[in-house]
Amino acid sequence: MATSSSHSAVRRVAIFGGTHGNELSGVLLVKHWLKHGEEIARRSMEVRPFITNPKAVEKCVRYIDTDLNRVFDNQSLSGDQKGKVPYEIEQARKINSLFGPKGSKNGYDVILDLHNTTAHMGATLILENSRDDFTIQMCKYIQTSMAPESCAVLLIEHPGVKYATTRSIAKHPIGIEVGPQPQGVVRADILRTMKNVVNYALDFMQYFNEGTEFPPCSLEVYRVLEKIDYPRNESGDLGAIIHPSLQDQDWKPLNPGDPMFITMDGEVTCYEGENTVYPTFVNEAAYYEKNQAFAKTEKVTLMAQALRL
Amino acid sequence: MATSSSHSAVRRVAIFGGTHGNELSGVLLVKHWLKHGEEIARRSMEVRPFITNPKAVEKCVRYIDTDLNRVFDNQSLSGDQKGKVPYEIEQARKINSLFGPKGSKNGYDVILDLHNTTAHMGATLILENSRDDFTIQMCKYIQTSMAPESCAVLLIEHPGVKYATTRSIAKHPIGIEVGPQPQGVVRADILRTMKNVVNYALDFMQYFNEGTEFPPCSLEVYRVLEKIDYPRNESGDLGAIIHPSLQDQDWKPLNPGDPMFITMDGEVTCYEGENTVYPTFVNEAAYYEKNQAFAKTEKVTLMAQALRL
Repeated sequence: MATSSSHSAVRRVAIFGGTHGNELSGVLLVKHWLKHGEEIARRSMEVRPFITNPKAVEKCVRYIDTDLNRVFDNQSLSGDQKGKVPYEIEQARKINSLFGPKGSKNGYDVILDLHNTTAHMGATLILENSRDDFTIQMCKYIQTSMAPESCAVLLIEHPGVKYATTRSIAKHPIGIEVGPQPQGVVRADILRTMKNVVNYALDFMQYFNEGTEFPPCSLEVYRVLEKIDYPRNESGDLGAIIHPSLQDQDWKPLNPGDPMFITMDGEVTCYEGENTVYPTFVNEAAYYEKNQAFAKTEKVTLMAQALRL
Repeated sequence: MATSSSHSAVRRVAIFGGTHGNELSGVLLVKHWLKHGEEIARRSMEVRPFITNPKAVEKCVRYIDTDLNRVFDNQSLSGDQKGKVPYEIEQARKINSLFGPKGSKNGYDVILDLHNTTAHMGATLILENSRDDFTIQMCKYIQTSMAPESCAVLLIEHPGVKYATTRSIAKHPIGIEVGPQPQGVVRADILRTMKNVVNYALDFMQYFNEGTEFPPCSLEVYRVLEKIDYPRNESGDLGAIIHPSLQDQDWKPLNPGDPMFITMDGEVTCYEGENTVYPTFVNEAAYYEKNQAFAKTEKVTLMAQALRL
């Protein structure tokens, strides 16, 4: 019976900033590290900072033509799309050739993709695969190192939804999402938190490469269940907004009967599910157009085997 | 000696939302009031809600071509601009013909223009003229009614800077700025505060029209002194960000020697002025492109004579 999993050394790591051009912590950090690579250098591996959506960064918008963080599917990457290609699809193919190709042995070992949210999520790690022991161990290491500051782990593995994220071209993708921060603003406190998370992630990989053995661990994660949209009127406009008692309450239990939305007339919509859930991305600015007021999650405990080189 | 000032009754009031299309409290309130005018109706006057920049609202951006809230100067409004006219200039002329013309007797009596900021300014009233007793009395009434919730008054009268705001076409313009709220987000708490301010403003006008006499008053305001830009590098990029000890400290004293900015390397820039000032619009998202990290203000006390019909 396998009680530990053996992995190859981490050779190539990328740090992506500006996947959304108005999420400024990652933009500023990556621009800074492009000039001061010594701050993220670790002797056992290559660490490459990279601005993934330079045109969106220049304009300080989320994207130019389409969301770069949703187009790393095989069809978009394969280049058989006809007509004028949206800027972000072009950019995705370029990124895939530099850091992928997705699903191949030649892809980067790890990509850390830096994001901000307007939601009160604190430091959050986004995990795509519940069976990736290496990344689970990395999340555990970062979470432990960040304590007592909280660092939640959001698992976006879902039978019906494929996100096709920018980072998904790496063998071990991880999203780093820190909030609350408005779009187009950089806050020193949020920047510091993000910088700490990145440094702990790099430390973990350096220790792993040096032969440190990480014992079996369990990791509590919030697994995405379902996206919940705002109530809307017949023309698609907002019919209600997030209720004050749900605002800023990411990761807190939402129990049957708890208020979710309130109309301009004061009418309240309550949660009618049978089980307690844990909302996240509550009132995220970028998700109004994606018809998402928040995401419902459930708490799940993942197990990872001991990890060694 | 005049000890009270006599004014005509308030006949026409406009409430503007969406002057900046991604400041959503005003957008939602005005859209709501367009359907439910009874909530803002007062029997002695016409109250007209109006979306000022509908294209920007539709796209949820600040503006399409140029900032609508800076183009109500005589040159832009007069129509002698050559070539293709920016959307907001066209729109300004339309608004001026509906609610102005600026500086004429036919202009609306009062325009309440609804805005949000990412700065921690709370409820703020923006006053353009230090000698307008009517508006000073209205600010005093609103401030008193809002207590114990704070409601600062920002005076933007400045010898060197003309703002040419959308509301400046009214005889008595007043900006209502509520934050913090990210662009593209609507928060129930901020919405409620804005709604309260508007209702107190309308109550004041109704009482005035009914013959209520308002005694002489003093009003403490924060007068704009100077805009302070972020430190920038040779290419114009941010060279430093707001220091954590200044972040969220709008209206709090900034004393000589206090930190203002911090670089990515931790280098701190301190305030070197001779007098205590009161920063506001600290780290407002929309002002990065206007080269403004915050505005320095000083406390000034305005006096208004008694007011009666």
